[in-house]
Amino acid sequence: MISANDPKLTSWVNVPDHSDFPIQNLPFGIFKTPQMDARVGVAIGEHVLDLKALHVLGYLENLPFTLDDLSSNTLNPIIHRGKVATRELRNRVSKLLSSDIPDLRDKEHHVKQALLPMGDCEMLLPVEIGDYTDFYSSIEHATNVGKMFRDPANALLPNWKHIPVGYHGRSSSIVVSGTPIHRPKGQMLPADADAPVFGPCKLLDFELEMAFITYPGKPMGDSIGTSEAENYIFGMVLFNDWSARDIQKWEYVPLGPFLGKNFASSVSAWVVTLDALEPYKVAGPAQDPPVLSYLEYDGNRNYDINLEVGIQPEGNDETVICRSNFKYMYWNMSQQLAHHTVNGCNIRGGDMMASGTISGKDETSYGSMLELSWKGTKPLKLSNGEERKFINDNDEVIMRGHATNGDIRIGFGEVRSKLLPTR
Amino acid sequence: MISANDPKLTSWVNVPDHSDFPIQNLPFGIFKTPQMDARVGVAIGEHVLDLKALHVLGYLENLPFTLDDLSSNTLNPIIHRGKVATRELRNRVSKLLSSDIPDLRDKEHHVKQALLPMGDCEMLLPVEIGDYTDFYSSIEHATNVGKMFRDPANALLPNWKHIPVGYHGRSSSIVVSGTPIHRPKGQMLPADADAPVFGPCKLLDFELEMAFITYPGKPMGDSIGTSEAENYIFGMVLFNDWSARDIQKWEYVPLGPFLGKNFASSVSAWVVTLDALEPYKVAGPAQDPPVLSYLEYDGNRNYDINLEVGIQPEGNDETVICRSNFKYMYWNMSQQLAHHTVNGCNIRGGDMMASGTISGKDETSYGSMLELSWKGTKPLKLSNGEERKFINDNDEVIMRGHATNGDIRIGFGEVRSKLLPTR
Repeated sequence: MISANDPKLTSWVNVPDHSDFPIQNLPFGIFKTPQMDARVGVAIGEHVLDLKALHVLGYLENLPFTLDDLSSNTLNPIIHRGKVATRELRNRVSKLLSSDIPDLRDKEHHVKQALLPMGDCEMLLPVEIGDYTDFYSSIEHATNVGKMFRDPANALLPNWKHIPVGYHGRSSSIVVSGTPIHRPKGQMLPADADAPVFGPCKLLDFELEMAFITYPGKPMGDSIGTSEAENYIFGMVLFNDWSARDIQKWEYVPLGPFLGKNFASSVSAWVVTLDALEPYKVAGPAQDPPVLSYLEYDGNRNYDINLEVGIQPEGNDETVICRSNFKYMYWNMSQQLAHHTVNGCNIRGGDMMASGTISGKDETSYGSMLELSWKGTKPLKLSNGEERKFINDNDEVIMRGHATNGDIRIGFGEVRSKLLPTR
Repeated sequence: MISANDPKLTSWVNVPDHSDFPIQNLPFGIFKTPQMDARVGVAIGEHVLDLKALHVLGYLENLPFTLDDLSSNTLNPIIHRGKVATRELRNRVSKLLSSDIPDLRDKEHHVKQALLPMGDCEMLLPVEIGDYTDFYSSIEHATNVGKMFRDPANALLPNWKHIPVGYHGRSSSIVVSGTPIHRPKGQMLPADADAPVFGPCKLLDFELEMAFITYPGKPMGDSIGTSEAENYIFGMVLFNDWSARDIQKWEYVPLGPFLGKNFASSVSAWVVTLDALEPYKVAGPAQDPPVLSYLEYDGNRNYDINLEVGIQPEGNDETVICRSNFKYMYWNMSQQLAHHTVNGCNIRGGDMMASGTISGKDETSYGSMLELSWKGTKPLKLSNGEERKFINDNDEVIMRGHATNGDIRIGFGEVRSKLLPTR
């Protein structure tokens, strides 16, 4: 077992009940303050531990990280050091924050320098994303889409249970939680029209997803097997795959989604390591028909992570409209990564691979407005009495996630984004 | 007119007849030698001009480039300085290489330091590619594919003449000319089978494309119009979009090509600036039906660039199997970039956007084996008597391109890649 996951650990830093960031979590992020340049931090309770400051103060000695690595405005330099190194770093931070360990705890002037109230910190995009891939790995989501747009009796396409279907997306427009986005314009084909029109998207949607971030992979031409795949995964974030349904519908045959997706995707700021999630592994759904041998795997590879989505209209309270769970995924991350590299495609440190919309069986667990409102035929009621079929201008969409064993909660914080009107 | 394009210019550096790199071209690339780290160079005749050395020697004074910019192992730093700056740099190099200008010409020890035989230089991937997009902009190619796989009477899909259809591809596996690639493995559905099998791709193909490289764009949410699009294009390369047809066929519905493409793409090493290509602009095909207003454009936006593809089996001579031209493209680069950003999608300096397969009307101008051999039904004869339906292990595929006015030849060199057996 990874020592930093010990459920008996407590921290001398105050961690409120139900905090996403107990000492068993210790997610990494990039933050800055009005006084300080961007740097690497770790979340603990309602504080951020400044790893650059820790390095300067000598607390990270005998670890394979330079001051430059920890003064970076992305996590890529620490990711490039590899899994053994980042695990050691998390273990060191765990020790330094443990109630029992006086080294940092009792040095008041060092604590003052290295521990900052989270409210004083601005979080930045945690990684410079090389390539971004989006999968389509929820059978409930793929089935819902198939029922709506194709044949309800044959909702899944023939390849779906054989391939963790995925496609390449746009990395330049992935932004961190808190960054407002603009309603996109584009071409749409109105019902019964012969020719498309141009204008603001009318059917703007979110997709509830999670994404993993990779360590550097193998040389081009080599593959990563399912048995080793988790060694190539640094951590995870919440991922809102904004989708313009009307633009997407007109453009996506035959080469897939493009402008219907690439105007923006939003991610949470704290990268929860796969190590911290290790205690929350569960079995995935049975896969029938059996998969090809390169997609077979041993052990539990799904993760029990509770997810929710809220909509908050401007000046109103939030209404939670979806509760789902990452454990529902038909294809797990090990299978996704094995498939992605089976043709020799190389991955780099900081690549991001998203799950696809995470829907459950229950109607309230569907991970998009498309499914929740069933193509707009069943509007959702918000707590202020308004209805929503899709997302309105000035709505905020909020996604949250956490794993828990009842006592400890390994949380992701949130990804919160406001939709501004078209520019 | 851009002064460096003056057809009367000659260089004191010997430029053989029919060289791709006369003084009117001056493409940028990244090279290294056994003695020297990677740096920025410019091709002239059969030599490479070392811009780092020129900077050290004081020849690039009063230009907005640092020594670091020119000591980089990618062109991104100079691209980030913008179009005005890179144009000034090309103009300066043009002056320094002009027969009439003694500044560098007459300093023998400086020439010895800064001018290297091309044969002594190893060329590297010229840019760190942020996002890579592939379009599908040849009407002849799209029609051929539609005839083969859909309805010969309705070969083009309904959106094709309204949208410069494109999709996101993989940047990590884009490699420079000379880099061997491996035949990919993957899932394929054999004819009349119910379930897929796994193994080496049997239908490995090239796609003859060109790609443009962008300057930094506008903030997310803003768009680039057709009238300004060329200000955001640094230059162009030849692009071989390797394609595994059997893998692609089984995977691509509904989200587009993925493992059938992302195992490798190959580019030529020298980036020919859009400035150097300016004299070779021509009118594009008439677009009927009329395009939406954001896709309308003024003036000539196509480029007359002769293209050819050769296959060279191991130990044999090359056979040229395709002659095409970039001027055939239905959708031009300005339209592609305007479409790509019309939804507010942001571009970065160093993004790469490929044209899609460049086929002409004539059967010998088709830009892929799929079309040339018409799905394998019409094998091509090579000069050694062998036949090819697709690409065999140990074949080299060579693409070349040049624009010419009869006297001056603005060439791209070549993109040459050997296909190794599967790993």
